[in-house]
Amino acid sequence: MKHTISVLVENHAGVLSKVSGLFARRAFNIDSLAVGVTEDPAVSRMTIVVNGDDYTVEQVEKQLNKLIDVIKVKVLSSGEFISEELILIKVNAPAQSRSEIMQIADIFGAKIIDVSRSMLTLEFAGDSARIHTLEDMLTPYGIREEVRTGTIAIESGTGLIRSADNRAAQAHSIDN
Amino acid sequence: MKHTISVLVENHAGVLSKVSGLFARRAFNIDSLAVGVTEDPAVSRMTIVVNGDDYTVEQVEKQLNKLIDVIKVKVLSSGEFISEELILIKVNAPAQSRSEIMQIADIFGAKIIDVSRSMLTLEFAGDSARIHTLEDMLTPYGIREEVRTGTIAIESGTGLIRSADNRAAQAHSIDN
Repeated sequence: MKHTISVLVENHAGVLSKVSGLFARRAFNIDSLAVGVTEDPAVSRMTIVVNGDDYTVEQVEKQLNKLIDVIKVKVLSSGEFISEELILIKVNAPAQSRSEIMQIADIFGAKIIDVSRSMLTLEFAGDSARIHTLEDMLTPYGIREEVRTGTIAIESGTGLIRSADNRAAQAHSIDN
Repeated sequence: MKHTISVLVENHAGVLSKVSGLFARRAFNIDSLAVGVTEDPAVSRMTIVVNGDDYTVEQVEKQLNKLIDVIKVKVLSSGEFISEELILIKVNAPAQSRSEIMQIADIFGAKIIDVSRSMLTLEFAGDSARIHTLEDMLTPYGIREEVRTGTIAIESGTGLIRSADNRAAQAHSIDN
């Protein structure tokens, strides 16, 4: 089962290495990982998608909370968050198939960001299922290259990952 | 100066840890990092943005090429690639300011993906400069939470990162 974990960390060199080292030592396979700056330049947010049972994810959460540079860990429950990923996809598109591909892009709300005589490059943001369907539709034309960001997630409604309980802070004071 | 590096790696547990460990040991600060699957499930692509001079980036490239799980490293030259990032941004939006925010979203081509009585959540894909401008426009309303994927990049035209020269393979045979 896939779990999405949102982790706020201090924006230092070496934090990513500590977090990914933790996953590697325990052989937890990361499905995707995205790191970006936040509204606070001193803080980065990692969104990590892992495959595993509930026990595994509990262990991951516990271990992450022990890391000194980790400010907050939140395992997102399905239905409570919106997840999206960005994909850039370059597909064979000689003149005779260009309009078909443009039609597919249009249906998905994908943007055409580049064109050459033989290829088109599309940009699309959506959830995994929609991305999978778009790939499926484009496969017959020949996908030449595909670059994905990994999934990011935000809580729906007024929920804020940042302002929830301060388990991370508590874990620090107990464990360190 | 910012440099964008595209790295194709074997999709194993532990690869991310090796790559980020390399950056941490040399205290290269990663500006952003995104890992996603590719058109080949056995291969992941990391897009890494680092700050540093040309010498630093050369060193990073050389060290990355030495890692056994690294298939290909390509430092992208500006002008030869398109880079994009995805941002989810939750902003205060009581009824009286909602239409102003919707107008801003419209101008940028940002999508409104969630609404509650007091907040709106926007999704936007673009380059760093456009994202920065959007943030600037939304700041007066009160940005509550921001999640970013980190930058991904694809070569323009028919260029393929994958099919370029096989320096990585050569480095493996020499260094390992």
